[in-house]
Amino acid sequence: MLTLAIDTATKVCTVALCRDQKLLAEYTINMGMTHSEGLLPQLEQLLQRTGIAKKEIDLLAVSMGPGSFTGLRIGLATAEAMAYSWQCCLHGVDTLKAMAYNIPLEGKVLSPVLDAQKGNFYQALYQWQFGRLIELEPVEVVSAERALERIALQGTPALLLGECNRLVKKGLPDWVQVAPEALRMPKGSSVAFAALEEFNPEADKKIFGLEPYYIRRSEAEELWEKRQQQQ
Amino acid sequence: MLTLAIDTATKVCTVALCRDQKLLAEYTINMGMTHSEGLLPQLEQLLQRTGIAKKEIDLLAVSMGPGSFTGLRIGLATAEAMAYSWQCCLHGVDTLKAMAYNIPLEGKVLSPVLDAQKGNFYQALYQWQFGRLIELEPVEVVSAERALERIALQGTPALLLGECNRLVKKGLPDWVQVAPEALRMPKGSSVAFAALEEFNPEADKKIFGLEPYYIRRSEAEELWEKRQQQQ
Repeated sequence: MLTLAIDTATKVCTVALCRDQKLLAEYTINMGMTHSEGLLPQLEQLLQRTGIAKKEIDLLAVSMGPGSFTGLRIGLATAEAMAYSWQCCLHGVDTLKAMAYNIPLEGKVLSPVLDAQKGNFYQALYQWQFGRLIELEPVEVVSAERALERIALQGTPALLLGECNRLVKKGLPDWVQVAPEALRMPKGSSVAFAALEEFNPEADKKIFGLEPYYIRRSEAEELWEKRQQQQ
Repeated sequence: MLTLAIDTATKVCTVALCRDQKLLAEYTINMGMTHSEGLLPQLEQLLQRTGIAKKEIDLLAVSMGPGSFTGLRIGLATAEAMAYSWQCCLHGVDTLKAMAYNIPLEGKVLSPVLDAQKGNFYQALYQWQFGRLIELEPVEVVSAERALERIALQGTPALLLGECNRLVKKGLPDWVQVAPEALRMPKGSSVAFAALEEFNPEADKKIFGLEPYYIRRSEAEELWEKRQQQQ
């Protein structure tokens, strides 16, 4: 099965092409560029260099959040439009879960985090056990203190992934380390592998109606509500 | 420091741009394509998408082997020509050592291998200790049996990287596992990070005279010698 994967949930724009469990190509840009300008040219570069015909693609895998509101909307709109045009399946995966596929090694607890603003983090906890990814704790919006506490409760050394700089600045206990730079941020191939694991040939034929996973409401929505209350 | 890295030692064509220890962009193709046709377009795509001006590049990092004769020559010739044109530094890194930068995590012994043909493998053994990569055993051309024996002598569970399919087919003992697909093959960013660690601002101004690291002679050289002896 040929999977084209997209992740624009963070500042990183990453796309990948995988045949079953084999990585054929991956293009990643981590320069804080605008996804609305960059995603399509990057996909076009990837398809052009690999020579893969669009009609060969069986599955579009897309990172569904949590993450940046606009980034997620761009990724999902692009993936939906392509799945519709090429008549292929579409599967959305949790951004934090996909990041755990960056380090598919047993042992440490993996704690992907993303900045949820206002001093909070999106966080989930995973561990690879016997070749499968186990969710130890689901995605929640937590404070820095609570994020470290959730890790501590596991009683196993952990690796932080994702946007963890603000968490690191607060000081980490000995048993929490930051994943290496090149494995820390979203990767298109991880989105593809996570989607393959969850793939459902019937359900994934339904292209429309996927909703990005925000948890927190957008800044605009909160502002709107605040203003309504003031009136 | 802005580093542009190239690895064409295997069937994988991978290029990356890093600012110091930060990965800015990485383009990887693993479809068995010809490097002579693909490398330059792939570099051009990377530079075009990142908008980095060529004159900003401080260091060209290139994978020096062991690996494919032709692949290494193409990578090195391209890197030399670009370093010469752009008047920047050039640093060659060992292909196996660079692969150990794919998994910069402490614990397991890392054993990158590459196919040296005739049932043999290029193999070295590394381990991350206190944030630094330690060479446990240097690169050697060894049989499959000897490769597993060298790992066993370390007395620590190990991960195989690189072209390890033939080794896997022989059957692996419990304490040897294969690294996950997406971390197994050369990565441009790993070449950049390995080069940064070894970078010498004076020595790396010398652009010409780098030699690919073959260990084994080429098939053509061996054949030539054989024919000379027969005459």
